Amino acid sequence: MGRWAPGAQSRLIQAAMKLYSEHGYEQTTVAQIAEAAGVTERTFFRYFTDKREVLFGGSQALRDDMLAALESAPPGASPIEIVRASIERLCENFTEHAFSRRRQEIINANPLLQERELIKLTSYASDLVEALRERGVEKTTARFAAEMGIAAFRVAWERWLEENGKRPMRDVFRESFDQLRVVASDRRARRRHLQR
Amino acid sequence: MGRWAPGAQSRLIQAAMKLYSEHGYEQTTVAQIAEAAGVTERTFFRYFTDKREVLFGGSQALRDDMLAALESAPPGASPIEIVRASIERLCENFTEHAFSRRRQEIINANPLLQERELIKLTSYASDLVEALRERGVEKTTARFAAEMGIAAFRVAWERWLEENGKRPMRDVFRESFDQLRVVASDRRARRRHLQR
Repeated sequence: MGRWAPGAQSRLIQAAMKLYSEHGYEQTTVAQIAEAAGVTERTFFRYFTDKREVLFGGSQALRDDMLAALESAPPGASPIEIVRASIERLCENFTEHAFSRRRQEIINANPLLQERELIKLTSYASDLVEALRERGVEKTTARFAAEMGIAAFRVAWERWLEENGKRPMRDVFRESFDQLRVVASDRRARRRHLQR
Repeated sequence: MGRWAPGAQSRLIQAAMKLYSEHGYEQTTVAQIAEAAGVTERTFFRYFTDKREVLFGGSQALRDDMLAALESAPPGASPIEIVRASIERLCENFTEHAFSRRRQEIINANPLLQERELIKLTSYASDLVEALRERGVEKTTARFAAEMGIAAFRVAWERWLEENGKRPMRDVFRESFDQLRVVASDRRARRRHLQR
């Protein structure tokens, strides 16, 4: 499974995802996950604080990637371009379509997990705002840039999952981001105006 | 108080706002509101389904205004311009700064009211998307246009409340919306590019 090295952690994730899919997230216990993975509960807790973290444990690494890209953006880059580059870097982590899709199905089936997912995206936006502010970007500009980036990400994420992974997530995000900017820039209206 | 005609409903709103501010929203009962307004509880329930509706009862009228503006937009208008005009119309309702500010302070003090306020804004966005779709606007374009409009509204709302009402809410919204579009269009970067 690529990014998950073979071993206890990988087996725990596989087992948890299977149980969440088949019996529901709420109904699954840590004891069942550990048993299905052939390890003790204690081993489970060495890798995860609870059964929810199996689904959200990777988000810190994604955030770190995103912020590393932000920090390495050239000094003259505009806020919206910095946000685009940062989220593109984050998108490069989504290489396992089947895994992401299954995870999303589990989340869609549970309102508390949906809420957690929403909070995760909101916190990505806050992280972007804070990092832009540290680069000297004005407050509202930072907020708008981050919100637009996350709005484009959400649309891209849905598209990527629907598409069965025929394109890399990063390409789908670029497309979505470009569409958002066309909507914002109102090119159609300006063209009409110029033709008068 | 302008938009609230003198009478029971107006007195109930005044009484409720005073009690929510002084004793907290949670601690205030319908009986106390009715008593302070000099009416019976039964009269309270003729105007409001519960004590929360005193704070959110006006939102249907705002939504109706917004959607009426959307429907009367000229056929050739771009989605983002339609959204701007619709939210501008909505903004024209905010003429009582002191009332709005007090209401916001009550909401800020209570997480459940904050959640309700967030749901209200999300539902405005959904209404905009639906009405744009009915005009034949593509799904993602409609969504982006609505989300940008609401993002600009949120920023404008905070600014307007901070400013103590020195400018009409509509003007503050226009400014915020223009700023969002400057961020999206990346004018700075394009200008730099052209100077090379």
